[in-house]
Amino acid sequence: MSAMDDLLAYQRETEALGQVMGRLGWDQETVMPRGAAAQRGDEIAALEGVLHARRTDPRLGDWLAQAVPTSEAEEAQLRLIARSHDRARKVPGRLAAEIARVTSVSQGIWAEARRAEDLAGFLPVLGQVVDLRRQEAQALSDGGDAYDALLDGYEPGMTGDEIGALFDRMRPRIVALREALRAAPQAPDLTGRFPKAQQLALAEEIARAFGYDMARGRIDEAVHPFSSGSFNDVRITTRVNEVEPLGCLYSTIHEVGHAGYEQNIDQAFGLSALGQGVSMGVHESQSRIYENQLGRSPAFCHWLYGRMVDRFGTLSVAGPEEFARAVNAVTTGYIRTEADEVHYNLHIMLRFDLERALMRGDLALEDLEAAWNDRFAADFGIAVDRPSNGMLQDVHWPVGLFGYFPTYSLGNVYAGCLHAALRADVPGLDADLGRGDPSAALAWLRHRVQVHGGLRPPRETIEHATGAEVSEAPLLDYLEGKFTALYGL
Amino acid sequence: MSAMDDLLAYQRETEALGQVMGRLGWDQETVMPRGAAAQRGDEIAALEGVLHARRTDPRLGDWLAQAVPTSEAEEAQLRLIARSHDRARKVPGRLAAEIARVTSVSQGIWAEARRAEDLAGFLPVLGQVVDLRRQEAQALSDGGDAYDALLDGYEPGMTGDEIGALFDRMRPRIVALREALRAAPQAPDLTGRFPKAQQLALAEEIARAFGYDMARGRIDEAVHPFSSGSFNDVRITTRVNEVEPLGCLYSTIHEVGHAGYEQNIDQAFGLSALGQGVSMGVHESQSRIYENQLGRSPAFCHWLYGRMVDRFGTLSVAGPEEFARAVNAVTTGYIRTEADEVHYNLHIMLRFDLERALMRGDLALEDLEAAWNDRFAADFGIAVDRPSNGMLQDVHWPVGLFGYFPTYSLGNVYAGCLHAALRADVPGLDADLGRGDPSAALAWLRHRVQVHGGLRPPRETIEHATGAEVSEAPLLDYLEGKFTALYGL
Repeated sequence: MSAMDDLLAYQRETEALGQVMGRLGWDQETVMPRGAAAQRGDEIAALEGVLHARRTDPRLGDWLAQAVPTSEAEEAQLRLIARSHDRARKVPGRLAAEIARVTSVSQGIWAEARRAEDLAGFLPVLGQVVDLRRQEAQALSDGGDAYDALLDGYEPGMTGDEIGALFDRMRPRIVALREALRAAPQAPDLTGRFPKAQQLALAEEIARAFGYDMARGRIDEAVHPFSSGSFNDVRITTRVNEVEPLGCLYSTIHEVGHAGYEQNIDQAFGLSALGQGVSMGVHESQSRIYENQLGRSPAFCHWLYGRMVDRFGTLSVAGPEEFARAVNAVTTGYIRTEADEVHYNLHIMLRFDLERALMRGDLALEDLEAAWNDRFAADFGIAVDRPSNGMLQDVHWPVGLFGYFPTYSLGNVYAGCLHAALRADVPGLDADLGRGDPSAALAWLRHRVQVHGGLRPPRETIEHATGAEVSEAPLLDYLEGKFTALYGL
Repeated sequence: MSAMDDLLAYQRETEALGQVMGRLGWDQETVMPRGAAAQRGDEIAALEGVLHARRTDPRLGDWLAQAVPTSEAEEAQLRLIARSHDRARKVPGRLAAEIARVTSVSQGIWAEARRAEDLAGFLPVLGQVVDLRRQEAQALSDGGDAYDALLDGYEPGMTGDEIGALFDRMRPRIVALREALRAAPQAPDLTGRFPKAQQLALAEEIARAFGYDMARGRIDEAVHPFSSGSFNDVRITTRVNEVEPLGCLYSTIHEVGHAGYEQNIDQAFGLSALGQGVSMGVHESQSRIYENQLGRSPAFCHWLYGRMVDRFGTLSVAGPEEFARAVNAVTTGYIRTEADEVHYNLHIMLRFDLERALMRGDLALEDLEAAWNDRFAADFGIAVDRPSNGMLQDVHWPVGLFGYFPTYSLGNVYAGCLHAALRADVPGLDADLGRGDPSAALAWLRHRVQVHGGLRPPRETIEHATGAEVSEAPLLDYLEGKFTALYGL
């Protein structure tokens, strides 16, 4: 066995254990008995300890030093394993364990505080989380920027300065579009009752149409939809509200985007460091292009209108055009996860600025709520009416995910780049989507992006797929074109 | 931290990882996508490697040498951890991994061979399994009996000689009872159609009546029903056949017996070596007494008859007495898992003798089928008509579980002992069962057996509960009394 063989065999076991951890998460959110929560904490902590010990194993350093790559894929394996090893070694085991423990507690306190609208009850534990993650960031950053060290964990190679500059360029055009749309008449809401079994059947039909392989996956219900797992066991969840069917359908398409990425990675990369989506931003680019550029396109909405009528009878909207506008309603709301394509990135910009200031020590915890509310009023023109509509709405900060939010907008930007290149390469796309057939677009995404897994760094992954530099321009062009046409501006 | 503290903290993590392994098994048999099988093999192998490394960790030896127990529970912790450490260290890691690999392959070949009635196609891999387990037995036995070394893995302290002597004492009375019952008129079969949803609803109602805590468990469907997990996450499965409702109901009560044992162990023992049922035999005593002595008692059958009529309408049996005989039909059949209480132990005696001879090298693999068929004809009076009705029927040998079968009959014997003591202590039991209320019996079992978990060795666990030596006599007295009364002999 060469050092490369030893390294890859060891990594295969680590990846397999990582998949087991993912399965515990799936189980917890879908089928776990409620009385098992504390025990599950012990199980996850024990497995996390095993994974941490493996990622910091000194033998990794020896193998990495001795291994001689003979292909682009082996070079990428070494780069990704070295990166994981370096990051894991920089964080003291005691700190990692304390972060796991406190964020687990914090999530419960947050859920209760959100229910009770009790911001003050949540701030103390949030303070602990912020403090621990800042310690981790300092350990990771080698004296560099603390926020960048955390962001790099989700989007390798990206910096807060780059994100800030990107957002500065996006903001004026998004605000201008939003203002223009404010004057346009909105489509009526979709009203009525949509039985759960019918929604789930349609969701599965659409998941299959979007290429989801049910032989290597399954669809369950969960409070907050997610995708979980890699390689040949990639599961998605959805949620059902019988008076609001679009949530089930579009969250399913979104999760199928994440799952399709995982299912379509080259099988040769399975259970290796290359065998998962390369970053949160690239992952989100897949879920967003499935959900928005494909699934919310007027052409696909026309097809979906027919399927909805088949399944549910006459709808409260007058026809496919009005249905497309209902699917793409533009409204100012408090909640990020319910935001339309135009408003979404404004929610992210707010969070990015605040969490970056927090991590850098430029914003005190006791000033966070006022900063959120002031910024929200300025950006959205309405006042936050209660904490659950403000800074208590998201699970990210309670569980310590500082540096994660901007990857959602990066995903939108990447999706914009991919969509422009896809449209150039697949000229008949709207005709396909009008027949409910996204297969040509999916094949393009599979071959250009998904099969490659972790082979190239995130930005290179997108630029390799499109042949162009990453830019916000295609996303903004797409948004302006789509929404001015839809609303006849 | 004392050595005892260190040891128990380490063991807690090992137990938590063991629970994770159990969850993977549950997932595989209930919800796993079929395309994930090979990946799951990698996941299980990686986690098994972690567990083996922990069980053989040299620090365990140091802590065990230094730890000073201050209670009966701590003494038991040391005894059980030392036992696990000793057994794990005796088996070379390479052999353990090879057994895991070959038995995983073997199970697939067996399933296909059983389907195709192709015994010859299965023998080569069975030969590998037998050879590997004999190697393991030799490593474990320290020059002692190979079969005893395997049996000890499932029923600590039990030997093949003891089992053989027990079976020799049981056999004549069972055969005599079986012969007497052959002449008795049988109840008609329960015919009709029993909708799946109604069966599952009744199964859950009965599971709750038998004390199953759904807040710390759940019921799913699986091809072969099983119970899985310990402490606060103990799940059961059942199977449904719409023309045969008793299978669903009684397999549920059986698994609730296993699950009740796990759920009722002292919470202070959770995620410790004491926190699971102490042996396969004691485990089976709980499932058997729930299913048979309680669930198939004429008194409970009378109550169940009423619930069946409520749920399904008029039955094909004439009333509660005939229903009780249908539930307790005595028939000569090929299949162990379908056997009645009278025939069941004869199936086990056959397997025990053959597997013991195999492991000791007294029976060659190529002679196994003939030995099975000859013995079956002699014991049951009918000729095996095809391999799936003969030695291909059970999963145990294909997955290497040699030494496991006798624990089923031990469970019956233990259940007989417990039932006699229970009847003496709870005189109104039949009146309770006639109202569908086994709670007094369950409370007795909980306090006498279940709460103690692994505190005492298996035989002592039963003798502590009953205040009497373990003996086959109560089981045989019970069988003779119940069946001669039921069939009016």
